[in-house]
Amino acid sequence: MNHKRPLILVTNDDGYDAPGIKHLTDIAQEFGDVVLVGPMKGQSGMSHAVTLHEPIRLKKVSEEDGLRIFACSGTPADCVKIALHQLLNRKPDLIVSGINHGSNSSVSLFYSGTVAAVVEGCMNGIQSIAFSVDDHSMDADFSIAVKYVRTIIREALANGIPSNTCLNVNFPKAATEICKGIKVCRQTMGVWKEEFDHRIDPHGRDYYWLTGFFQNNELGEEDTDDWAVQHNYAAIVPIKVDVTDYDALQPLKNWNVDYE
Amino acid sequence: MNHKRPLILVTNDDGYDAPGIKHLTDIAQEFGDVVLVGPMKGQSGMSHAVTLHEPIRLKKVSEEDGLRIFACSGTPADCVKIALHQLLNRKPDLIVSGINHGSNSSVSLFYSGTVAAVVEGCMNGIQSIAFSVDDHSMDADFSIAVKYVRTIIREALANGIPSNTCLNVNFPKAATEICKGIKVCRQTMGVWKEEFDHRIDPHGRDYYWLTGFFQNNELGEEDTDDWAVQHNYAAIVPIKVDVTDYDALQPLKNWNVDYE
Repeated sequence: MNHKRPLILVTNDDGYDAPGIKHLTDIAQEFGDVVLVGPMKGQSGMSHAVTLHEPIRLKKVSEEDGLRIFACSGTPADCVKIALHQLLNRKPDLIVSGINHGSNSSVSLFYSGTVAAVVEGCMNGIQSIAFSVDDHSMDADFSIAVKYVRTIIREALANGIPSNTCLNVNFPKAATEICKGIKVCRQTMGVWKEEFDHRIDPHGRDYYWLTGFFQNNELGEEDTDDWAVQHNYAAIVPIKVDVTDYDALQPLKNWNVDYE
Repeated sequence: MNHKRPLILVTNDDGYDAPGIKHLTDIAQEFGDVVLVGPMKGQSGMSHAVTLHEPIRLKKVSEEDGLRIFACSGTPADCVKIALHQLLNRKPDLIVSGINHGSNSSVSLFYSGTVAAVVEGCMNGIQSIAFSVDDHSMDADFSIAVKYVRTIIREALANGIPSNTCLNVNFPKAATEICKGIKVCRQTMGVWKEEFDHRIDPHGRDYYWLTGFFQNNELGEEDTDDWAVQHNYAAIVPIKVDVTDYDALQPLKNWNVDYE
């Protein structure tokens, strides 16, 4: 590898061979040498889970000049850990995750393996960006994403991302000419309202499928990421690895407990 | 159930029958009617994962006056979701999770199913507190925890927790008389440095065990939770569900991208 080029680690949660990660890898290669370590199979909804109770397998899929591809049996967080601590002999200049098939705006970021991968990168002191498109289908249109991912990677490498912060970027499901540009946003406050689909199996036993819908608790707030994506903007939200609520420290200190 | 008593949902990630959750349930019963929905088997390190691709089973374990116990096949986040949206006919007044066998201070909160359960509760507008003891063993000493859990639940019910914030409480591994009291802290910045244990299976194929150690990047900072726990204090950290880095919004707006 040419050590003068940036080293970029690519991962996702849809699997190492999903269409979205192929687009992301193509763009990353324009900027540097790429190592892709993605899950062997889909890991959607796995959040920041790590594999503690079973062994992790790592398979080399292919190697060519400037691009090495590996499939890992673990979660997206495992992919980043094994890349950083076992596979790579230097620290990557950038970690990019996605392009996810499905939005990770608002609180969906908590469930997302794609976003967890960049939080993991950020904790390790590496600039990290998650990309998602608001379209779950495997043949989602990545035209808008491709255009803006290139710009965002270029600017991240040129300007840097503040330390202990990573980026959660979401693209609308829209034609390129309809997308109105990029908005820097805050995370929308909302919640997934679950509607468990209760069924009876052939042996007479109950089971449930987790299903539901996202409820936006800040409808109409134009500085939020969900508003942006719904209105055909690409949304960038900077997210912190320090999740302390500093405003709550003093109220808690007023509690009548046995403080030191 | 007597609707004048608070309704308290209890969960964890070590399993519905782990010693820690029994202690927590006993204390919760002093304050209200309790519904325990815990994982059927250990879910440590599962973070905020949700079960999307297989059905969820829910088994009633026992029912007595003021205490119903269920085991759920899913993750801790699934346990909270199925309790709130399928099982309970009113909103709980409090969700408590734990008492976890093992510390969830600093960035360990990202990997923790115990903490994810209270983030899920918080997103649903319910006061939620995670409790952990810095001792992984199944016969951990919960004496300190039991003492302070009672106080903290009492104060949470009396004063309330700021909305969109939940609590991550960690107890030291120490005898009760050595514990110096409670400290309200911020989250320690640090990282898990992984040391993959690389082995060869009997068929000649590589595999890896995820192992490692926590690196505190703020050693000596007395307002952090890891410092507190290491110095025999119980640590309360208020954590936010809005993880936006507001300080980073302006720097990002200065990037040379196609902003609206």
